[in-house]
Amino acid sequence: MSIKTANQETLRGLTDGQPVLVDCAPAAEAFGLADRTVLHAGPPLAWDRACATVQSALCCAVRYEGWAPDDAAAADLIHTGAVRIGPCHHQAAVGPMTGIITPSMPVFVVENRAHGNRAHVTINEGLGKVLRFGANDESVIERLRWLAREAGPILGAAIRATGGIDLRALMAQAVRMGDDMHQRNVAASALLARRLLGPLARSGADPAALGRVADFMGANDQFFLNLAMAAGKALTDPCRGIADSTLVVTMARNGTDFGIRVAGLGDRWFTAPVEMPTGLYFPGYTAADANPDMGDSAIVETIGLGALAMAASPSVVRFVGAGGFQDAVRATEEMAEICLGEHPHFRMPTLDERGTPVGIDIRKVVETGITPMINTGIAGKIPGTGQVGAGVARAPLACFAQALEAFAEGRQGKMKN
Amino acid sequence: MSIKTANQETLRGLTDGQPVLVDCAPAAEAFGLADRTVLHAGPPLAWDRACATVQSALCCAVRYEGWAPDDAAAADLIHTGAVRIGPCHHQAAVGPMTGIITPSMPVFVVENRAHGNRAHVTINEGLGKVLRFGANDESVIERLRWLAREAGPILGAAIRATGGIDLRALMAQAVRMGDDMHQRNVAASALLARRLLGPLARSGADPAALGRVADFMGANDQFFLNLAMAAGKALTDPCRGIADSTLVVTMARNGTDFGIRVAGLGDRWFTAPVEMPTGLYFPGYTAADANPDMGDSAIVETIGLGALAMAASPSVVRFVGAGGFQDAVRATEEMAEICLGEHPHFRMPTLDERGTPVGIDIRKVVETGITPMINTGIAGKIPGTGQVGAGVARAPLACFAQALEAFAEGRQGKMKN
Repeated sequence: MSIKTANQETLRGLTDGQPVLVDCAPAAEAFGLADRTVLHAGPPLAWDRACATVQSALCCAVRYEGWAPDDAAAADLIHTGAVRIGPCHHQAAVGPMTGIITPSMPVFVVENRAHGNRAHVTINEGLGKVLRFGANDESVIERLRWLAREAGPILGAAIRATGGIDLRALMAQAVRMGDDMHQRNVAASALLARRLLGPLARSGADPAALGRVADFMGANDQFFLNLAMAAGKALTDPCRGIADSTLVVTMARNGTDFGIRVAGLGDRWFTAPVEMPTGLYFPGYTAADANPDMGDSAIVETIGLGALAMAASPSVVRFVGAGGFQDAVRATEEMAEICLGEHPHFRMPTLDERGTPVGIDIRKVVETGITPMINTGIAGKIPGTGQVGAGVARAPLACFAQALEAFAEGRQGKMKN
Repeated sequence: MSIKTANQETLRGLTDGQPVLVDCAPAAEAFGLADRTVLHAGPPLAWDRACATVQSALCCAVRYEGWAPDDAAAADLIHTGAVRIGPCHHQAAVGPMTGIITPSMPVFVVENRAHGNRAHVTINEGLGKVLRFGANDESVIERLRWLAREAGPILGAAIRATGGIDLRALMAQAVRMGDDMHQRNVAASALLARRLLGPLARSGADPAALGRVADFMGANDQFFLNLAMAAGKALTDPCRGIADSTLVVTMARNGTDFGIRVAGLGDRWFTAPVEMPTGLYFPGYTAADANPDMGDSAIVETIGLGALAMAASPSVVRFVGAGGFQDAVRATEEMAEICLGEHPHFRMPTLDERGTPVGIDIRKVVETGITPMINTGIAGKIPGTGQVGAGVARAPLACFAQALEAFAEGRQGKMKN
């Protein structure tokens, strides 16, 4: 297949798949996550290379599952391999920031109805001391237990009663309402809450429990982020393995490495040291408090959202410290230089209905030296600090250079055969 | 007081009041709407001068209340004065399009906590055959009965349980999300639904009834319009009577006349024949099907929303057939020429956080000849047709010229004394 044809096929997959929210169920049940396994964000990561924030979250996850009484014992289990760790991305899942998933955690299930594959993601925990930012005290574990005991089952029942919620349509509407779907998800979160209002009301669940779930969802403007990520995972997974395509299908970070995967290069990761985001810090914090960039959330940039959709989201550009409206437009225009196409569904009213740029081509990245921008939350580097700011990170050029080299080698190999 | 000082006081009232949604209750109970009374939109209107759409809605309202068995008998009751009709605006109320309110209809109650006054508005009926567009068959009456029997009480209980919902904050957020709050209210509607999710869940109401109310709210992207109108009414009423102020505090239409009221000119209406909106028609309809402009909804333009906030709402500019993003910016800039200030709370991210223009000054309107634009729904002129399109209407210049003349006469009178 020609690269051009292959890339068109990938682009169709990235943009015309049909991610539908169909369930919320424990990870063990939803995608068979094995006992004594903890998933994390980004490319594969050995315990010794993990940053303190990720290590802290991994230990908390082990304690949450009751596999160890304290962090030292938890670390030992991971170190000896008695508890296995591995990337979410290897198991049809994604996770924000530290990206922790364990078997008993409830996960949203997003089915790509154009392909039949599914993707999974945890329920967003909200702000403050949360596992995804490496907090690991009792309050974190208590919230995780409540999510598993009460919120997950109630949300699952309501979602199943809908027969499936079309996330592409919901996200397209939210982009029209100023969400970039990475650092700003207030529109999508509110649209989802409105969509679930009826099914939740009819669920017959205990009013007090229903009220707690409703308040939890309603208080979190980033509630939808995880679902946008699962939609991205559901859309990109079928594109992994489209031979001869140079489009990026994964961007993910684990706090140590930034990794990408490319449609035509299958399951192989191309990694480089992750960079620091630049942005705005919450009161009391500075760049010195920041952890290097983390999380699977960059999957949303892979499908034309986040920083690529900056022009659609003039509110987010200030939040991430990237200037004003014209800077937002410039960011989207810069990203268009490294993308193959414009999104047929995610349209920007501020640019007279142009689609967001989508389909990052490793050839264009290497040729122009323009690296993908990512709208990201900034975690504190001391475990338990939580989020200290929001900003823009750049994917390291080295990942794309390596991938292009591997791609070229593959083509030469094929020609020889 | 100098005009300048008076206008600054009015501007503060228009922008810094605190509209809070506190209840939903029958109009008779909420603001003492008298038996055998039907309120309508716009300035005062005699039955004989009402357009067919308004007459149809008035008759339907009389039948809904059980005061007459058919339209002929209903018309007779109104004609003889056995049923009184009068403007919503004279009773601390507002209504969209035909603007009908009768004593048993549930109304939202919005309290302006900066002044203690309250404003009232019906629950938005949704699209299709609805009373506000002059439809008057049994399905219309059945929906009105359901609103009174089931939706009103459930919404009232949930709203009371919140202790009050700050509408100014919610509207400011929705403006950031692309609502003009007149022809586009999807963000505000979804934010309100999310806010009510918890209180509704905890209400303990019958799950099936709760489900019907949730579905009804969730299916209507214009659900919030009526609340924006009540917020506008609650903010503008205390400004009526600020001596020496030339700012507009009411703009309203009844399908026959366009009327304005001015802060410094008390309760006096200045009217002129209402104009036809220009815009886009739904499939199957043309300008020949359109009713002249109608409704109290132009109150939102009076507080700096609707067409005045067009630049914040690049999606609405297409819906009302007013061009693209740059046209939206130009519309807001044109409106700024006739306004005293910029809104301190309703900020437009597309214009780098500038506030929407607010405080229409009759002197500036007459001096420039620029008349206020209004983003409006277009009703069919044949009763029962419903909405046939959406567009932009202009307030007639004559209203402002008359008001300015009256203002000048008043000043001269004072100087003589």
